[in-house]
Amino acid sequence: MSKEITSREQDYSQWYNDLILKAGLADYSAVRGCMVIKPYGFALWEKMRDQLDKMFKETGHQNAYFPLFIPKSFLSKEAAHIEGFAKECAVVTHYRLKNDPNGTGIIVDPEAKLDEELIVRPTSETIIWNTYKTWIQSYRDLPLLINQWANVVRWEMRTRLFLRTTEFLWQEGHTAHATAQEAIDETMQMLNVYAEFAEEWMAMPVIKGVKSINERFAGAVDTFSIEALMQDGKALQSGTSHFLGQNFAKAFDVKFSDKENKLDYVWATSWGVSTRLIGALVMAHSDDDGLVLPPKLAPVQVVIVPIYKGDEQKRMIDEKVIPLIQDFKAIGVSVKYDDDESRRPGWKFAEYEMKGVPVRIAIGARDLEKNVAEVARRDTKTKESVSLDGLANTVLILLEDIQKNIYQKAKEYRDAHITKADTWEEFVKLLDEKGGFISAHWDGTAETEEQIKELTKATIRCIPLNNEKEEGNDILTGKPSTERVLFARAY
Amino acid sequence: MSKEITSREQDYSQWYNDLILKAGLADYSAVRGCMVIKPYGFALWEKMRDQLDKMFKETGHQNAYFPLFIPKSFLSKEAAHIEGFAKECAVVTHYRLKNDPNGTGIIVDPEAKLDEELIVRPTSETIIWNTYKTWIQSYRDLPLLINQWANVVRWEMRTRLFLRTTEFLWQEGHTAHATAQEAIDETMQMLNVYAEFAEEWMAMPVIKGVKSINERFAGAVDTFSIEALMQDGKALQSGTSHFLGQNFAKAFDVKFSDKENKLDYVWATSWGVSTRLIGALVMAHSDDDGLVLPPKLAPVQVVIVPIYKGDEQKRMIDEKVIPLIQDFKAIGVSVKYDDDESRRPGWKFAEYEMKGVPVRIAIGARDLEKNVAEVARRDTKTKESVSLDGLANTVLILLEDIQKNIYQKAKEYRDAHITKADTWEEFVKLLDEKGGFISAHWDGTAETEEQIKELTKATIRCIPLNNEKEEGNDILTGKPSTERVLFARAY
Repeated sequence: MSKEITSREQDYSQWYNDLILKAGLADYSAVRGCMVIKPYGFALWEKMRDQLDKMFKETGHQNAYFPLFIPKSFLSKEAAHIEGFAKECAVVTHYRLKNDPNGTGIIVDPEAKLDEELIVRPTSETIIWNTYKTWIQSYRDLPLLINQWANVVRWEMRTRLFLRTTEFLWQEGHTAHATAQEAIDETMQMLNVYAEFAEEWMAMPVIKGVKSINERFAGAVDTFSIEALMQDGKALQSGTSHFLGQNFAKAFDVKFSDKENKLDYVWATSWGVSTRLIGALVMAHSDDDGLVLPPKLAPVQVVIVPIYKGDEQKRMIDEKVIPLIQDFKAIGVSVKYDDDESRRPGWKFAEYEMKGVPVRIAIGARDLEKNVAEVARRDTKTKESVSLDGLANTVLILLEDIQKNIYQKAKEYRDAHITKADTWEEFVKLLDEKGGFISAHWDGTAETEEQIKELTKATIRCIPLNNEKEEGNDILTGKPSTERVLFARAY
Repeated sequence: MSKEITSREQDYSQWYNDLILKAGLADYSAVRGCMVIKPYGFALWEKMRDQLDKMFKETGHQNAYFPLFIPKSFLSKEAAHIEGFAKECAVVTHYRLKNDPNGTGIIVDPEAKLDEELIVRPTSETIIWNTYKTWIQSYRDLPLLINQWANVVRWEMRTRLFLRTTEFLWQEGHTAHATAQEAIDETMQMLNVYAEFAEEWMAMPVIKGVKSINERFAGAVDTFSIEALMQDGKALQSGTSHFLGQNFAKAFDVKFSDKENKLDYVWATSWGVSTRLIGALVMAHSDDDGLVLPPKLAPVQVVIVPIYKGDEQKRMIDEKVIPLIQDFKAIGVSVKYDDDESRRPGWKFAEYEMKGVPVRIAIGARDLEKNVAEVARRDTKTKESVSLDGLANTVLILLEDIQKNIYQKAKEYRDAHITKADTWEEFVKLLDEKGGFISAHWDGTAETEEQIKELTKATIRCIPLNNEKEEGNDILTGKPSTERVLFARAY
């Protein structure tokens, strides 16, 4: 099977698409820009979702669910928000179809036109803050810490499986607070939750930082993000956390009375990650033979493949494998015993390589005589002969090692691809030849960022948190600057 | 708080609405017919969803995700399906808004009209079978056992929180099989899963049966359902499982080659339950003081309320409660210690009664002296003084007893409300005065069922599985009949 994927060197973009399709993560659909998430891809999303959900609940959040539709007028209420989100969205204008009186098909019933059009949510700030208005009266109702797992729709012109699709799945946290500081603390807390998830679970190193005005969420006072680096040297924004100030509270007139009975607008945050993370995960670690998944998120952590001739050998292998499966289950390792007779071991090896199963155990009749099994790790593609005694525990340690190793590998690559540039020539050359993050001075204006983007397609990914102050000159305009920021071409 | 709910006797329908709102399960939204599921309601849904999901996976199903939108032409492909679902649905006709050149607001951009309108899925058979076409070629690809958790939209004219909303959350299973028998077995298996979930988890007795033609799913060969009885004597269809025959395979041209290399159309099932189950759960058990939740699904199973004066008493109670909480966690019981100082115990008692927390433990200073606590159960509203020694285990047994008791109570009510009618006068009188299921003869025609519905608003809920054969005469037409069926007024 591996022959069927384009190599990264040959065509990185095609490699990615091939991989998504061949590993069974997703498929194209009949609806422009929308994808089908296949069972293996969805199992991966479930693992990610469940862990994130646990982290949200541990930090005091509750889940709720708000309507899919947003009345058109709601989008207009926050001035910046409308500019960012009203442009490309799915608009529901009618609520009925009928048989075509002049033909055989069905048509939209012109009599079933909505008085006000409904927008399929591109994000839910407006409908949620319109609801919060009725939920929040006093400081006793605060903080309100709510998250929603939902589908959203943004009518994208160019789509890529997982990375940019018209419909995608995500979570959006929407919190309300009595003070600006509390909302800022929440914004940073959730940025840290995302960074912890990316690094500890996805094994993907990220840089935490604040966005420039150009890249800020429409309606936010400040947008923070985690930025990861893919193997082709392009950056990928992997999660955002927004301090919304009182913008949405003012737009929807949400006030609370404090302990002294004074009325004030409520302070807000919102934060989200999406199925885009699956695209990031795939690109961060995988190779030309298929997916490489971090053990903590792999739907199947260990696959066992029997190698035998005849029923007697199979029976002997089964005798060893059945208790081994119990051992794995007892220590919380997910395992699949693939004894499908219709496929050869070689086919299975390639298949599980493609699917990124972290550890493969092959057991043959000769192995049994020696009381060993062949244990292969997906990340380094090394194999070892390992004693069957205590095998589950040996593999457990190996899984931890794989998790660390793929993080380390990604981190070394990322660290080696943060490069300082001090002249425009250097900047352009680095972008074209090396890629990665370019640390360069910027004069702080939206115009300069826009100009750099037009000239090079690079944008400011973020101004890292706790950024070092340093006098310098803007990489393009030469105007004075007080710190370097991180530029990159990005997904 | 309980004073604020209308009693069931006074106005059952208003009681239900009051309860949903006061218990914090859901709220109305700004979008016609759409509701907001509040955190407590969503926590309940999560418990239900997680258990169902486990049961689906145990029966070999995998989750996946298909697009929200369905091209208009897809709906026309299955003749019966279009009649059932094309009528009232949300239609996306445009993909962009723009600033109104003649005003200050935003308008739909007439230049962004879709070539083919998209329907927000009312159910996903069409988009899924269009996808299955590319996934299924050979018997090796079968069975395909897939489930999806999703939101769907049906443009309902009259809506009720949870029971009938324009948008609702549900799961829809869509399976593909090589033989009719295998698909029929799957249909029955999932009907049994639903019945087990309703009875064992929701503590809600249900009748399994097959639907009459009038009530059949649009596109199915046979529709099976589980039917529950609410406290007002009305029936509620709580889950459906459809044998679709080859209808969708033919509509979307999905064929497979069998072991002998012969081509045949694939056999299909689909099955679903929705957030409607929350409405059923509320109505099946609750009383005039609030929700009564089965312990197995209650988001909080036990609440502990301290009763004290001064810090010293509070400290002494804390000393007992902290290890008690650990005991509860160790045996898997979810517990909340509500020591919020800003609320009085009486307020808390009413609040948790309203929320249906199965067991309330009150601990006061005088209780401590006697080494006891007051344990109150929500279902019977009885209280008992119970030793603190081994309290967690005592409560665990109590929770099991509550689960059994509320099932038993609902079952007794249900069984007492299945009544035979042999004359039309009896039939009408029973419907008007007693309610519940009426077991009566039916001549088997759609016309008669339609006529009975017009005259009485009662429909055939189902023909129970393994129904006894009995000669008789149709309750309305007097025509010969071979079995009784269950009529009821229904939600």
